Amino acid sequence: MNLPHQPKFLPNTESFKASPLLIAGLLEAGVRAAGNNEIVYRNITRYDYPTLNRRVHQLAHALSALGVKAGDTVAVLDWDSHRYLECFFAIPMLGAVLHTVNVRLAPEQVQFTMAHAEDTLVLTHRDFIPLLESIGGELPSVRGYVLCEDEESGPQSSLPVLGEYEALLAGQPMHYDFPEFDENAVATLFYTTGTTGNPKGVYFTHRQLVLHTLVGASAHASAGAPLLSRDKVYMPITPMFHVHAWGVPYIATMMGCKQVYPGRYEPNVLASLVVNERVSYSHCVPTLLAMVLGAAEATHADLSGWHVLVGGSALSAGLARKALAMNVDVRGAYGMSETCPIISLTSLPADFAESDEEQQLHWRCSAGVIAPLVQMKLVDEHHQPLPQDGHQVGQLLVRSPWLTPAYYKDPDSSEKLWQDGWLHTGDVASIDQHGLVHIHDRLKDLIKTGGEWISSLDIESLISRHPHVSECAVVGMPDARWGERPVALLVQTPSTAALDAESLKAHLMSFVNQGTLSKWAIPSEVRVVTAIPRTSVGKLDKKLIRTQF
Amino acid sequence: MNLPHQPKFLPNTESFKASPLLIAGLLEAGVRAAGNNEIVYRNITRYDYPTLNRRVHQLAHALSALGVKAGDTVAVLDWDSHRYLECFFAIPMLGAVLHTVNVRLAPEQVQFTMAHAEDTLVLTHRDFIPLLESIGGELPSVRGYVLCEDEESGPQSSLPVLGEYEALLAGQPMHYDFPEFDENAVATLFYTTGTTGNPKGVYFTHRQLVLHTLVGASAHASAGAPLLSRDKVYMPITPMFHVHAWGVPYIATMMGCKQVYPGRYEPNVLASLVVNERVSYSHCVPTLLAMVLGAAEATHADLSGWHVLVGGSALSAGLARKALAMNVDVRGAYGMSETCPIISLTSLPADFAESDEEQQLHWRCSAGVIAPLVQMKLVDEHHQPLPQDGHQVGQLLVRSPWLTPAYYKDPDSSEKLWQDGWLHTGDVASIDQHGLVHIHDRLKDLIKTGGEWISSLDIESLISRHPHVSECAVVGMPDARWGERPVALLVQTPSTAALDAESLKAHLMSFVNQGTLSKWAIPSEVRVVTAIPRTSVGKLDKKLIRTQF
Repeated sequence: MNLPHQPKFLPNTESFKASPLLIAGLLEAGVRAAGNNEIVYRNITRYDYPTLNRRVHQLAHALSALGVKAGDTVAVLDWDSHRYLECFFAIPMLGAVLHTVNVRLAPEQVQFTMAHAEDTLVLTHRDFIPLLESIGGELPSVRGYVLCEDEESGPQSSLPVLGEYEALLAGQPMHYDFPEFDENAVATLFYTTGTTGNPKGVYFTHRQLVLHTLVGASAHASAGAPLLSRDKVYMPITPMFHVHAWGVPYIATMMGCKQVYPGRYEPNVLASLVVNERVSYSHCVPTLLAMVLGAAEATHADLSGWHVLVGGSALSAGLARKALAMNVDVRGAYGMSETCPIISLTSLPADFAESDEEQQLHWRCSAGVIAPLVQMKLVDEHHQPLPQDGHQVGQLLVRSPWLTPAYYKDPDSSEKLWQDGWLHTGDVASIDQHGLVHIHDRLKDLIKTGGEWISSLDIESLISRHPHVSECAVVGMPDARWGERPVALLVQTPSTAALDAESLKAHLMSFVNQGTLSKWAIPSEVRVVTAIPRTSVGKLDKKLIRTQF
Repeated sequence: MNLPHQPKFLPNTESFKASPLLIAGLLEAGVRAAGNNEIVYRNITRYDYPTLNRRVHQLAHALSALGVKAGDTVAVLDWDSHRYLECFFAIPMLGAVLHTVNVRLAPEQVQFTMAHAEDTLVLTHRDFIPLLESIGGELPSVRGYVLCEDEESGPQSSLPVLGEYEALLAGQPMHYDFPEFDENAVATLFYTTGTTGNPKGVYFTHRQLVLHTLVGASAHASAGAPLLSRDKVYMPITPMFHVHAWGVPYIATMMGCKQVYPGRYEPNVLASLVVNERVSYSHCVPTLLAMVLGAAEATHADLSGWHVLVGGSALSAGLARKALAMNVDVRGAYGMSETCPIISLTSLPADFAESDEEQQLHWRCSAGVIAPLVQMKLVDEHHQPLPQDGHQVGQLLVRSPWLTPAYYKDPDSSEKLWQDGWLHTGDVASIDQHGLVHIHDRLKDLIKTGGEWISSLDIESLISRHPHVSECAVVGMPDARWGERPVALLVQTPSTAALDAESLKAHLMSFVNQGTLSKWAIPSEVRVVTAIPRTSVGKLDKKLIRTQF
């Protein structure tokens, strides 16, 4: 008889005390590592890490005085700021839950998320007061509001305002005796911007955020030119409500990097912060990168030394080339709200410099290499595993220690997300033998024409290389003969010759002739428009695009 | 009434499956990161990471075929080799426990550790067969031996040999379906070389080793000149039985670094491996660094680009200067067997280059900055906390997620190690406001003379700066008038003028005149000897030195 055998587990000695993985430890590490590095908020505030630490402790005192307790949920609506960074630490360190509210959602969706999260206290920039006034009557759990002010005097408001952020911090004791608790306590909560139904709440525990930070630090620091280390300068161009700005403020803080928070996104301000503060690392969706590169301030600026990780949507070859021409190092990364988010990230291989331009673009525009402690699996339509040979394309399933364990109070959606112990991304991908991931499309955006599957992303990336195209989207539309046919929306670059469908088709035919595109993937219809519909976090809104066609 | 408030804990969705922190994930990450980087064993073997991975899987098959099951303990006695690295992974990945046997212990202590650990299978290099034959009769749990051979034919042995390592691997399937289990399973076990009583067993779980690896990767990669990243070359000069060579083989593997394993330590071989394999990072105790720097092969070699982390014992100013004069970057680190071991590590501060030589030496010879997720506390004789101001000196207590939870099957010692939830290091230290740690002495090696405490390490570091001293040890000896008086043992550098006590006292008086040494710290007696007693891992054996005086 074959008895099952167990690994060895031993009891701890009586006076041993385990050290849980808590966010507090990341801040402590940063204060020790940072030296004179600063936290910068636009041209408004700058201070050092001991000050960051003191302010986090004072904020905790201020929040406690306002009645915030472990288990409460506290909402923040602010532009990217030092205050937001302080909230990233103080709120979870109290044992409370940080709800980073997506301020770009429609008011009724903001109301839905804040009511669903049961927010008790709201910290808000004055720019969001009209929004909150419009929905404040339908937020029964909210006991009060704290104003985050860049200028001296606050606005009048009908909301129950408990005080102004700086005034509340002033005079608080410099040390808060933060509690130690189980690492599986929920630390953060935010809502995905699904195109169907209500937004879904995604949450992460202290353990998950600490592990995401540790692996992220190693992945950012390790390969080729390091993206982050103590001597780099970090500035997000991703709103801090968006997957806690990809978790990078936690990584940069643990490493003690200089950090620059740019407030409300204005292209010229972003470009001049990059230059004046010597920013070496940012991350953003493609649209925002294009916006900064197109800013007047960027035109004659020296942007060399700036590394940008592009995620949220695929980095197209056209945008990558444009960035490289301006001496900006760009690379892809992959993740989703439900994955904390980083699960793959492009590190340039050792033989990168010797490779030809097309191979370099292939690496840069990939989703990167699977991060440590992440497992990925590809499955076909029948849920059978596919080989990871760089060719086979299937739905991407993921496991790792930092994936959201469920949607908040939404068991039906949770059971669709998690099946058989794997998170189902809804993306179709291929993975090569070195763990390099290519995302081919959203499962629902794949186009099936004449029995063949084609990837809307692949066509978009090739269209993006046309010199007169600044943005594009490809969707499948029903077709009586072929089932579906691809159609394209384009925005043309300013002050160039008029772009027409024929010129674009000729451009795509050159790829057909090279064998890198199937002839049937050339869009049947091309429309030049002034703007392409996007979601609240800057992704192409393909559902809306299909409706408009 | 003040009800206690709890952080928020949420149930996982039904089909969610947690990802435990297992050593298997480190190897998977390394294979993806490494590109063409190699594992090198002396001039005998070199192979790439896919081969490492395949051999780990084949070793698991071979061990299973020999009856190794989850929960078993498997002993390894080998010089630093690719085989040892394979065992670092295959044995814990099976759910078994890797016992790294300290081959420098006396035979009766080796017998004690192997019997206490209940080893079931032993993998051994031929050099240790006489040792094992001498104790084999007293190892009732051992079912058999596997020979690790560098040459073709194995020796005759009276031991029950089950096969030769390479022969056992040959023909095994390339993939082993490793089990997934709880991250709190024990992965490694080894024995401390305490100077009193029997060796004590220290063990670490998969969770602890993964966390030590992640934090170690970030600490090695992040500050100033990175010690490790994918493009660095690692070679331990710490035997792999010594705290699994400080955990660095796990870090280097996860990062996909080229790794060089030097076999049995021979100074000229080590020096030429550094040069020929372009080793950029090593770690060792001071004695081994001195030995390599003094090797004939090192004399005219270009060692620039070699970074050495010194731990186990303090890095003295004299040795640091000698290394720097040979263009070797040296830095201190701190840890102990019970701490996995790394808990602090020197990262050079941003203003390092602008500092004067004494300040640079001060940083290099420190124990480094407290690592992320490590908490340290200083206490006085009455267990009252002391401020971390760089001046106050007290016993160092530690917490972190990777400290051994107990000594194996030794509750009495465990309760002395862990008190009130803190691991008591037995070291006295000071910590400055930036988290920079200085170890002043072992608590039991402090010298109390005329009512004043003096640090034997401080005196040793100053003596080490004498140009004719190659090694030294200072201990306190009973003294009728002063309680204790320091006495010094010296080894003089070869081919220099004879060293006498007067010359040494004049050297130390210069520090008294500078105000960096108290006059009463000048040793009362100085003896020049040919060798200083050391423990099995190269530390000064002060207990034996005191006995000899």
